[in-house]
Amino acid sequence: MYLTQALHKAVRECPDNVAVVEGSRRITFRQLAERSARLAGALRALGVQPGDRVGMMSLNSQRYVEYYFGVWWMGGVINAVNVRWSPAEVAYSLDDCDTRVLLVDRTFAPLVEPLRPLSKSLQTVIYCGDEPAPDGMLDYEQLLAAAEPAEDVRSGGENLAAVMYTGGTTGMPKGVMITQGASYVNTLAVVGEVARDKRTVGLVVTPMFHIAGCSLSMQLMWTQSTQVIMPVFGEVELMRLVQDERICETFLAPTMIRRFIDHPRFREFDLSSIRNMFYGASAIGEALLNDALRALPGVKFCQGYGMTELSPTIAMLAPEDHLPGPKQASRLSSAGRPIRTGEVRVVDPEGKELPRGEIGEICARGPMVMKGYWNKPEATAEAVRDGWMHTGDGGFLDEDGYIHIVDRIKDMIVTGGENVYSAEVENALAQHPAIAMSAVIGVPDDLWGERVHAAIVVREGMTLTEAEVVAHCKKLIAGYKCPRSVEFRKELPLSPAGKLQKFVLREPYWAGRGRRVN
Amino acid sequence: MYLTQALHKAVRECPDNVAVVEGSRRITFRQLAERSARLAGALRALGVQPGDRVGMMSLNSQRYVEYYFGVWWMGGVINAVNVRWSPAEVAYSLDDCDTRVLLVDRTFAPLVEPLRPLSKSLQTVIYCGDEPAPDGMLDYEQLLAAAEPAEDVRSGGENLAAVMYTGGTTGMPKGVMITQGASYVNTLAVVGEVARDKRTVGLVVTPMFHIAGCSLSMQLMWTQSTQVIMPVFGEVELMRLVQDERICETFLAPTMIRRFIDHPRFREFDLSSIRNMFYGASAIGEALLNDALRALPGVKFCQGYGMTELSPTIAMLAPEDHLPGPKQASRLSSAGRPIRTGEVRVVDPEGKELPRGEIGEICARGPMVMKGYWNKPEATAEAVRDGWMHTGDGGFLDEDGYIHIVDRIKDMIVTGGENVYSAEVENALAQHPAIAMSAVIGVPDDLWGERVHAAIVVREGMTLTEAEVVAHCKKLIAGYKCPRSVEFRKELPLSPAGKLQKFVLREPYWAGRGRRVN
Repeated sequence: MYLTQALHKAVRECPDNVAVVEGSRRITFRQLAERSARLAGALRALGVQPGDRVGMMSLNSQRYVEYYFGVWWMGGVINAVNVRWSPAEVAYSLDDCDTRVLLVDRTFAPLVEPLRPLSKSLQTVIYCGDEPAPDGMLDYEQLLAAAEPAEDVRSGGENLAAVMYTGGTTGMPKGVMITQGASYVNTLAVVGEVARDKRTVGLVVTPMFHIAGCSLSMQLMWTQSTQVIMPVFGEVELMRLVQDERICETFLAPTMIRRFIDHPRFREFDLSSIRNMFYGASAIGEALLNDALRALPGVKFCQGYGMTELSPTIAMLAPEDHLPGPKQASRLSSAGRPIRTGEVRVVDPEGKELPRGEIGEICARGPMVMKGYWNKPEATAEAVRDGWMHTGDGGFLDEDGYIHIVDRIKDMIVTGGENVYSAEVENALAQHPAIAMSAVIGVPDDLWGERVHAAIVVREGMTLTEAEVVAHCKKLIAGYKCPRSVEFRKELPLSPAGKLQKFVLREPYWAGRGRRVN
Repeated sequence: MYLTQALHKAVRECPDNVAVVEGSRRITFRQLAERSARLAGALRALGVQPGDRVGMMSLNSQRYVEYYFGVWWMGGVINAVNVRWSPAEVAYSLDDCDTRVLLVDRTFAPLVEPLRPLSKSLQTVIYCGDEPAPDGMLDYEQLLAAAEPAEDVRSGGENLAAVMYTGGTTGMPKGVMITQGASYVNTLAVVGEVARDKRTVGLVVTPMFHIAGCSLSMQLMWTQSTQVIMPVFGEVELMRLVQDERICETFLAPTMIRRFIDHPRFREFDLSSIRNMFYGASAIGEALLNDALRALPGVKFCQGYGMTELSPTIAMLAPEDHLPGPKQASRLSSAGRPIRTGEVRVVDPEGKELPRGEIGEICARGPMVMKGYWNKPEATAEAVRDGWMHTGDGGFLDEDGYIHIVDRIKDMIVTGGENVYSAEVENALAQHPAIAMSAVIGVPDDLWGERVHAAIVVREGMTLTEAEVVAHCKKLIAGYKCPRSVEFRKELPLSPAGKLQKFVLREPYWAGRGRRVN
């Protein structure tokens, strides 16, 4: 089981089909294999050994696909850098797993100078641009042209495919170790879970440094489809690409779906080629789904639920679960059911399994569970117990086995000895007509330990006061659950994958207290 | 990746659904897990260690499913005994991999006495019957009742799941080593390859000691379906089971499909529940498919192609490939296309890859390739080269990537320096109205090295002479390809899986010559 097999198979079965499109570039499967073999040869010549990490700091691009396959081809491990991070965070993630070679694109080349003095491990920078490489960097295309194509070492099974840094749940990023086997089996499972066209056209627009973007790219390789790469999300560019490239499937965050179907120029484009719309990072909700189905009639919607530590998918909400029916609302608010390779259970804080319907921590078991956190045996032992990944998501399983996420477990607010789930307060806030979005967190309070705090985005053209917010909530939920403080914001912080980043909201309150940054 | 996971998942998700039906017995997934855990505990108490082989010599039964899962539960390796073999062959297969514990059912209990003096390794026999165990055997149900249920050791990955003895291609059986990971990934790939119902009802009628029967049983566990077990194939019993149990899918050899749809009582039964008909061991052919579709309108047909050494599936002919169209005849004579995890190529005797359309040896690569032959490193090195399993099947890939099997490579007859493919001669014979079936083999000939020899079954009520056979062939194929000798037979020897066993035909001619038994 090795991830490059899908490329070898495509070269064998449809060598001259287009594998990757980025703007006016298009390369076939045969060319992709050839360029990956050359990149592998170039990396070997630079002294990279099988098992070594190789970084990339780039927008989505054709070369990102070559980076995946070229690194795996020579037995290396990808360390795809989160481009939203500061130089200090990037340096930390490079040094933590001793990444010495970094590929950068034109957009992020200016970050290299500030990065160099911060990173102990970084030695070689390869410039992936069409202009000549800046001083001190090697030129990607020159390297490839000069390289001897390497033999694929077919590194697989328990060997690492990736160290993906996730900053979502702790102060310092943790390197999630994903094996070749885990990624291979997860791709196979996801591709087999819902009916999927072969040799179609997919669009990769969520970041390829994120495991969701990487996974979609792998799935498209598996189905021998053309992958159209979109460097940066933009509604009009997305619609233009769908029309021009006849895109059949893509993966978006629900917030992206909203922006795209609500765009004033939506009707200008022929989007009839879209057949499958995958989404993740959050549930879609009835209102958005109905708007999306009106805008894109006949499109099948399918949710994936997972996390980097699960390679990434553990559950899916199938297209048929989106159809009208007595349970539609419940299905749409869920994260779907475990895929064929996955088991899910819900446990209490002592690790005891809870009956269906009771809220606790969602745990997942199966071949998708990470090998561990790089160099963090204690964090690994804390997260993975007896094979079960403790996701940190709070939720329950309903009578039909659908997973319902209510909140991050660590979001639970303990105020005056009472437990308050942020989701319950957010649900109450959502019922106020002037509130567009809200996020509820616990912040330190000398009297209560923590207090319930709400960050609120008010709908355009409307006004709202803290007193009105509290009065509204008191009508709906217990007094101790109502916000004791409110901040009004223009927008809420979202991750590149569209996930609400509560740790950004918490940071100013908890900084210096050594806990609960997320 | 461990095969018992699917059972754990079913217990978690649908514990009280019926897992296995055999006659009037029916057990739920929870009961199956409980009984498997007890069998695991009993085997441990008998001294079986993780990694040890455990045999079973039995018709298909509910206990066969418990045997699979119970042995895997304690980390053991199944050695499912081919019940068509003589005691000497069974003893060889037990001793070769040091199988000390053997389960037998009522049908094969009488074989134990002649087996004991022949086998050096056999120590303990467990009787799987409803009557008291014969002297010298332990009673299965008593063992289970007394056993402490074991914890599942979750043996997976590179650990062996099975040593399956295959006698199809050499004089002495070879033990094919199949890992937990290979079987896990192959089951997942096959289940995801064509749209498959979840929680349906399947029928297991091909022998469970054969990897095709074992694989179907695993697939049904994966889809959390009820598996109805049929101990012995019989047309009427099959139709009765389909009607009474509302069978949705099964796997049959084409010869079994023919016998069942041609049965005079066919119209007496309600067979409308059948939705998916999987078949293998040979192509179905247009005539049989059309008859079957008339008999079973709306049923989807799907072929699997593989061998024990491929865990077992490498290719599938999808339901849509069976539909009418300009290429239907070509599709129906093919073995389908490689599944998502499999690569196929065709090589010449020197191992050089041949272009599409040229006939050579079919080779397969992917995670389904066996770990090797038990204790036969030379045979393993001969069969698996650079990851490619050399199947021994001769054939070609067509322009659309479909695999066409023309013959066993070793069936190729070299006569007077000319190569003759048996398939070509058999195709000529098939065009004679008096010939029901034929098999062409090479037999030793002092003048020509080998000569072309035909075994022929004449249609009932018709007559045929050797001279007529030769005269018929001369009109169709080159003189050196025509049979130089003919034997007329009542029937041709078929394997339990429905495969023509040419080695049985060859044996009397080649015995004592030390080669070409198959």
